[in-house]
Amino acid sequence: MPYFCIAIFLIAFNSMSKPSIPRGTRDFGPKVMAKRKYILNTIEQVYQSFGFMPLETPSMENLSTLTGKYGAEGDQLLFKVLNSGDYLKDISADKFESKVLTPLISEKGLRYDLTVPLARYVVMNQNEVSFPFKRYQMQPVWRADRPQKGRYREFWQCDADVLGTPSLLCEADFVKIYRQVFSKLKLTGYEIRINHRKLLEAVVEKADASAHFKTITIIIDKADKIGIDGVKNELINLGLNETQTSVILSLLNKQAFNAANLANIKSALPDTENANKAIGDLTQLLELLNHQTDFVYLDGSLARGLDYYTGCIFEVVPTDVQMGSISGGGRYDDLTGIFGLKGISGIGISFGIDRIYDVMEELNIFPADGTKFTDVLFCCMDEKAFAYCLPLADDLRLNGIKTEVYPDTSKLKKQLDYANAKNISWAVIIGENEMNNNQLAIKNLVSGEQELIDKNALTLFLEKL
Amino acid sequence: MPYFCIAIFLIAFNSMSKPSIPRGTRDFGPKVMAKRKYILNTIEQVYQSFGFMPLETPSMENLSTLTGKYGAEGDQLLFKVLNSGDYLKDISADKFESKVLTPLISEKGLRYDLTVPLARYVVMNQNEVSFPFKRYQMQPVWRADRPQKGRYREFWQCDADVLGTPSLLCEADFVKIYRQVFSKLKLTGYEIRINHRKLLEAVVEKADASAHFKTITIIIDKADKIGIDGVKNELINLGLNETQTSVILSLLNKQAFNAANLANIKSALPDTENANKAIGDLTQLLELLNHQTDFVYLDGSLARGLDYYTGCIFEVVPTDVQMGSISGGGRYDDLTGIFGLKGISGIGISFGIDRIYDVMEELNIFPADGTKFTDVLFCCMDEKAFAYCLPLADDLRLNGIKTEVYPDTSKLKKQLDYANAKNISWAVIIGENEMNNNQLAIKNLVSGEQELIDKNALTLFLEKL
Repeated sequence: MPYFCIAIFLIAFNSMSKPSIPRGTRDFGPKVMAKRKYILNTIEQVYQSFGFMPLETPSMENLSTLTGKYGAEGDQLLFKVLNSGDYLKDISADKFESKVLTPLISEKGLRYDLTVPLARYVVMNQNEVSFPFKRYQMQPVWRADRPQKGRYREFWQCDADVLGTPSLLCEADFVKIYRQVFSKLKLTGYEIRINHRKLLEAVVEKADASAHFKTITIIIDKADKIGIDGVKNELINLGLNETQTSVILSLLNKQAFNAANLANIKSALPDTENANKAIGDLTQLLELLNHQTDFVYLDGSLARGLDYYTGCIFEVVPTDVQMGSISGGGRYDDLTGIFGLKGISGIGISFGIDRIYDVMEELNIFPADGTKFTDVLFCCMDEKAFAYCLPLADDLRLNGIKTEVYPDTSKLKKQLDYANAKNISWAVIIGENEMNNNQLAIKNLVSGEQELIDKNALTLFLEKL
Repeated sequence: MPYFCIAIFLIAFNSMSKPSIPRGTRDFGPKVMAKRKYILNTIEQVYQSFGFMPLETPSMENLSTLTGKYGAEGDQLLFKVLNSGDYLKDISADKFESKVLTPLISEKGLRYDLTVPLARYVVMNQNEVSFPFKRYQMQPVWRADRPQKGRYREFWQCDADVLGTPSLLCEADFVKIYRQVFSKLKLTGYEIRINHRKLLEAVVEKADASAHFKTITIIIDKADKIGIDGVKNELINLGLNETQTSVILSLLNKQAFNAANLANIKSALPDTENANKAIGDLTQLLELLNHQTDFVYLDGSLARGLDYYTGCIFEVVPTDVQMGSISGGGRYDDLTGIFGLKGISGIGISFGIDRIYDVMEELNIFPADGTKFTDVLFCCMDEKAFAYCLPLADDLRLNGIKTEVYPDTSKLKKQLDYANAKNISWAVIIGENEMNNNQLAIKNLVSGEQELIDKNALTLFLEKL
């Protein structure tokens, strides 16, 4: 066998014997899980404090539910599940072409987002759902995207939506939800950027460029990346003249969200339906926030590239770390219309857990004790010590102290290494001497200090801390 | 068009317009979710109190990881995910047969259980994992089984395993975990049934029927369903004589887990390696439990039909409700061997959430306030009331009281209907009069009583309760 063949054989053998996971997916080991749970629990708590109720939908949806809802590109990115059993049985061989064959051999796909399943759920359960329906949903979604840094094929979304009311109180609640979530997470460097779909429309109307509305929103949405000059060039390439371009460029500033700025915008715009609706909504939102606008900015360039928003649009961007938006959302007029239930206005936001995780990691603001899984480890130096310590361990657990007993009588060093690897704060060491004197040796694994205490004093000793 | 054609057309139209979910999958609406979360959180809390750490693995695994791990039937039940892109591009049309085609067009499958992914994770991360590795994992799994009552194609498993120690302390911990979980869930009617794989082997040895060991375990495992006579018949059909049969039937009793019964079993068995190991393990387990064996029974018929258990076996069965086991587990000697890491002994259990849910529902033991999503609803009778109540709502939330403001000024009846549908306890009603007098009308939605209180007294009023 020539050398290169051996090399190929070894590579093949290696990849056979070593298990792996699919590209773009991840295992979340204990330490990562603890931090993810911290983020998820914080968001969930805040959602609940505003009266949002949990919903979970199946991972698999019928492809008839998913297809056509995310544009042509989205359809490409759906993960499709092969029909079970002998799925080719009734299919003739002349169907051997993926576009033709796929609908015949696959009826189900993996959830692509949490919004379409919400719409589907509400339509299916419209008689039981009481409106306004406030639900939150925190589940993984799947997209057959090309994996790259920060982009995964399986990732979590954490959505909250209110369906069935046009009230701007919802917008105000979501601003408060943002501030509460990030305040609890101790994330202080961020901006909540707000815009209004109809403000964009009013400005494009004023520029007499409504025919290009969609393209223009896509261009200004890129302002962060390509700069003002880049936007200007693209607008001119689109065929807009100097005057039109400068009207649209006037959008591109980010300003404080206050009454004076709203009045300025109003006076700069003609008295159109779109302008009045946008300024009216934003004014009402400002009032519902009682003019408390910390972290909130009015960002005329915010378009979020999405067709279906019809009112206020939100985006949250971290300011101390180079990273895209960590949350987004907005109001839509007709989410459930795609499944035949018309006239249900709604609004929703979605947190990007992976990015929030990365931001918090980079800023090192996860709580230091967040990855402590166990408070106390009992270390038995001989077999008799198990009977001595097990009732104590039970007692600690009843008092809410996470406790484990090292399962054998390994050398102390090995047991303490285990404790250190798990970030455990206290070791309670029990050998012949301790048992004879009805005592325990308790070692602080952070300071290294060790002391002897009475056997019955343990719970009290630990509760004092 | 003849009548039957119209009927078919209507059915087709109907099924097109009404969205649905795949067979065997479920939506979990808010009330069901609240109860499921209650069970899951309880189990998680108990797992954590024993030092178990969270792990999550991807929903999709490579089919090379999954195939061959669950027997031929299991392979049939794997949901396979179609490769993305033009998956037929490089495949010739003569492969048009599902057995041949499938491996060419599908490389990934959905997780079938949480045990194989655990083994895969530990092998992939063996240098970072510190043993004994105590992990819990609560995630959905998927099986392309025929859906029926209580059997779903997507369902949750809640596993805990300890890898890397043969210590019977783990067995003792799992017995305690069972008792704590069910005690917290207020489920008092259940039995923890214990057996030992090697006790089964010792008895079958004594009956001189070791050649039929696997078949015999399958037969006695059915004792619950077919009765002692049924077991006897099947053993005789297998070719066993009267003496052999009666030795094996002696297994079929369920008895208290205590030293006297263990001694009896020991004296009834020949002095073999299997008998000594089984009695030795069970005796040590009894001692580690400090002879506290409430809820625990020794059940000689327990075999759990699974090949890979090598030591103690567990099963939990509810006794007040007709239902199969709600948890099971046991010790295995070589879980990670399938991926090339030999000699890692382990033990694990798994809770069946769906059945626990059904048992608790039937016994009506879910906490009454478990489906309260909101504590207080503010009902505004005119627009000015929003500014009046919003700071109060913020304040209640800061005090941990789940609060929402009805988003518009609908008639009071409509707002209270919403509160009732959501199980809300308190409505705070604000109209002209209340605002003029700096008051709030607070209505207890359970008793129907209503009183006026001072605006600033609200938090105190609610905290008193």
